[in-house]
Amino acid sequence: MTHLVNSSQRSLGVTFPTENQANIVLWAPLAKHVAIKVYGNQAAIPLKKEDLGYWCLTTSQLKPGDLYTYILDGHQEYPDPTSLSQPQGVHGPSQAVDTGTFQWEDQCWVNPALDSYLLYELHTGTFTQEGTFQALESKLDYLKALGVNAIEIMPVAQFSDSRNWGYDGVYTYAVQSSYGGAAGLQHLINACHYKGIAVVLDVVYNHFGPEGNYVGEFGPYLTDKYCTPWGKAVNFDDAWCDGVRRYVIENALMWFRDFHIDALRLDAVHAIKDFSPKHILQELREEVDKLMAETGRRHYLIVESDLNDPRFINPLSENGYGMDAQWMDEFHHALRVSIGEEPLGYYADFEGIGDLAKAYQNAYVYDGQFSEVRHKLFGYRAETNPGQQFIVFSQNHDQIGNRKLGERSSQLYSYEAVKLMAGAVFVSPYIPLLFMGEEWGETDPFYYFVSHSEPELVEAVRKGRKEEFAAFHSDEEVPDPESDETYERAKLQWDLLEQESHQILLRYYQTLIALRQQLPALAHLERRQLDVRADEANETLILH
Amino acid sequence: MTHLVNSSQRSLGVTFPTENQANIVLWAPLAKHVAIKVYGNQAAIPLKKEDLGYWCLTTSQLKPGDLYTYILDGHQEYPDPTSLSQPQGVHGPSQAVDTGTFQWEDQCWVNPALDSYLLYELHTGTFTQEGTFQALESKLDYLKALGVNAIEIMPVAQFSDSRNWGYDGVYTYAVQSSYGGAAGLQHLINACHYKGIAVVLDVVYNHFGPEGNYVGEFGPYLTDKYCTPWGKAVNFDDAWCDGVRRYVIENALMWFRDFHIDALRLDAVHAIKDFSPKHILQELREEVDKLMAETGRRHYLIVESDLNDPRFINPLSENGYGMDAQWMDEFHHALRVSIGEEPLGYYADFEGIGDLAKAYQNAYVYDGQFSEVRHKLFGYRAETNPGQQFIVFSQNHDQIGNRKLGERSSQLYSYEAVKLMAGAVFVSPYIPLLFMGEEWGETDPFYYFVSHSEPELVEAVRKGRKEEFAAFHSDEEVPDPESDETYERAKLQWDLLEQESHQILLRYYQTLIALRQQLPALAHLERRQLDVRADEANETLILH
Repeated sequence: MTHLVNSSQRSLGVTFPTENQANIVLWAPLAKHVAIKVYGNQAAIPLKKEDLGYWCLTTSQLKPGDLYTYILDGHQEYPDPTSLSQPQGVHGPSQAVDTGTFQWEDQCWVNPALDSYLLYELHTGTFTQEGTFQALESKLDYLKALGVNAIEIMPVAQFSDSRNWGYDGVYTYAVQSSYGGAAGLQHLINACHYKGIAVVLDVVYNHFGPEGNYVGEFGPYLTDKYCTPWGKAVNFDDAWCDGVRRYVIENALMWFRDFHIDALRLDAVHAIKDFSPKHILQELREEVDKLMAETGRRHYLIVESDLNDPRFINPLSENGYGMDAQWMDEFHHALRVSIGEEPLGYYADFEGIGDLAKAYQNAYVYDGQFSEVRHKLFGYRAETNPGQQFIVFSQNHDQIGNRKLGERSSQLYSYEAVKLMAGAVFVSPYIPLLFMGEEWGETDPFYYFVSHSEPELVEAVRKGRKEEFAAFHSDEEVPDPESDETYERAKLQWDLLEQESHQILLRYYQTLIALRQQLPALAHLERRQLDVRADEANETLILH
Repeated sequence: MTHLVNSSQRSLGVTFPTENQANIVLWAPLAKHVAIKVYGNQAAIPLKKEDLGYWCLTTSQLKPGDLYTYILDGHQEYPDPTSLSQPQGVHGPSQAVDTGTFQWEDQCWVNPALDSYLLYELHTGTFTQEGTFQALESKLDYLKALGVNAIEIMPVAQFSDSRNWGYDGVYTYAVQSSYGGAAGLQHLINACHYKGIAVVLDVVYNHFGPEGNYVGEFGPYLTDKYCTPWGKAVNFDDAWCDGVRRYVIENALMWFRDFHIDALRLDAVHAIKDFSPKHILQELREEVDKLMAETGRRHYLIVESDLNDPRFINPLSENGYGMDAQWMDEFHHALRVSIGEEPLGYYADFEGIGDLAKAYQNAYVYDGQFSEVRHKLFGYRAETNPGQQFIVFSQNHDQIGNRKLGERSSQLYSYEAVKLMAGAVFVSPYIPLLFMGEEWGETDPFYYFVSHSEPELVEAVRKGRKEEFAAFHSDEEVPDPESDETYERAKLQWDLLEQESHQILLRYYQTLIALRQQLPALAHLERRQLDVRADEANETLILH
């Protein structure tokens, strides 16, 4: 498959290698006939079938900005699975985009070493009142003053309507139109690099969202060999998997090469099921390495994994998957239980300060013990992996939003406890991550929200959310995930920063971040040199 | 989990560590109450719940030969999932067996080096008219005279009724009662070792048979995370998987330690789905290594895999699964197409002599090319794996019995072609395997046969078999897999050996086998020193 991937330019989808000519490559291995309908033109133009299920065309009749759809077998009309723009939403036609026209001004930008990353996770739609990339840009000076040097943007792949965390994306290549689309994202990244801020993009390769997902009409993107929390798994090793593997690899390369993204955060890779001799993440690593060798730019691959399996972050030379780093939820769980969180749900596996001490030293808390929550011996020891391979946090979008009432730490714990948790993150020998608003103690929740347009789906999500929390027996209602009000409440209240208590917390975070960068003992992520002693009787942890 | 496994003795199930005491260990993690009912005793005896879902009891009330069942939660009565004997079949009570009472006389036996193995695959029920281990024993001198030095016995785990290839076993630890049970198998192996013949046992860890399978009543032996051709997958990595992993590992150790089995052939390991940090085969390798270190005896782990993935046979030190060898169907397919088999079904991926040449040199024919049958790029190059890691054949139970009419090569091809195919196998730098009767050109087919007792299942199997071959449009009916006649016809016709043409073929095989052992160029499996030239125009292959 990889012989079809060209790291120096995207080959899948619609591209414009020369000004007046569009190159079209579509994977539709089971189709008998494929044509492209360009809006405003009279007749659909047939594509020519080539090897391995690809259909191709070079034409002067499709120009950047034009709307188009594909017509399969003469009558089925769908948007492009590799569409870069869906200006009328997930059900509308695709729009041709030439990513090459953007004038980049970040030639001097150098992606920092991974161990110096200080991550700030944000959701474009709720970070500002406007909910756009443009509005986000206006906050870059604020972030710069805070001291973080990398923003991690929750997924921007086009999803149904305008309100979504981003994990329901159905156009992996299209940037959400309501955020500002492809050009808006390029502009933001250019501005970030100008300010000295790296950009991490959260991407979802383990499932597609439930509404507006037409990829299945084009080919076997899914397989029923494996079951995931979202149903059928993305097809990485079953019949016709190569088209899907290429779809993912070209997508990752596109973000790095055409959008200057510095790192990808791959969502829930434990739900990527692949028994091929070469795992899709190994193949991705190889392709990204090729790209880096060509461009001289550095890019990182960071995974969300709940498997405590160092195979994901071990180098290819040791038959690992070669990922640069992984999220470490267990540090969060141990920290939260240490601070007083009730041991319910996934917290039930954690006992407090002793587990936190282990997280500081061994990264994985579970490295072979029996987990009462998972009902099995869980995890493996991460022997040789340096601190920069682990991302830690006291909050993130999931840990807040997957609570029934979406409470942030500042709503749950005392002011002093919140400060203590922030300190615990910044003195760790791992890469710290903040969640937007954490630094001033935002008092509003970050709810789970969506805005599907199909009535049955709307009801199913509402019902599912209620059932999920039915056992909690709390008087308060689960906020309606489909309502605009829920979404509005999730937006940050920037005016809180006018109040002294919030200002003090912000200055505390600024100071912590500055110390982290200035003190060699904190800046160098040498987890082997860290001495950790837990005094469980006094609930005290000593690090030095 | 492994801390519970004791390589020096079986711990799961019923054992007799001392003469008058039975030790009982049952895994039933979701049960609230467990008791054992010993037939002939008045009251059931409760077991005591211990950690990780185990229930235990030491009692003098259960003796070898006694029948027993377990009673779950006061009312559900089932046979033992780790039963060693089911004298009344799969639905009847279990029988306690003390494997330690057999008087072994094979102290001098040394399992040959793997590269000297000459394998003879047989099915106990149809190898002789009687279909028992005892009758099989009477043929050992014949096999010795033929020249093979290892028999590979198709699975003997207890299945429903008396007619089955063995892949519908539901008691992984019990030896089919109609074959002669545990004691019969021990007696056979003892006799084999006395004659200088090694014994390979085919074991199935990827699924359970459809009738008489009560393991699911005891715990989550299956998971719906993965789908296999047999439905839900055996649970190697989902919640409560550790009990299942132990069940498999203790079973393998039992065959080696308590039955003196020389090698296991693990059925269809591609259907063993396990994303744990340590794959079940890696764990099995480690445990078998421990056993070998303790006993000083050698045991081999051979897998049937259709994945062309050297990970299975690479050593643990390279993060492989450490299996000693694997079956290589592709050699068979390339050989059969070279000899004139029509390129239908899975043969469609093979073109003849060129593929056969590649099989001789590279083991895997597909090592990264697009497979039209699998619809994907398939396989990976086996760079460093020596010839002794691959088992080759011109026939086996599957390749014969999965044809509509179960024809052997001798029914399909000319006498000369049959001899050529045998020669192709014996000059290969791999381990050769014959299928029973091949060596005299048995003229009867080896059909697919079963004998379920549940009427719905009987009909489902009949229907499935008809549908499988519906596309073939042949006039001949699919033989009824459930009929006794089909079974009887699959039995070898030993009296054919009285006819000259069959005697000649037998002597040809004897000579080939003798040459294989005597000629250093054939006996040493150095696939790197083999020079292979394919002359496709003349359909000739030159090896030297």
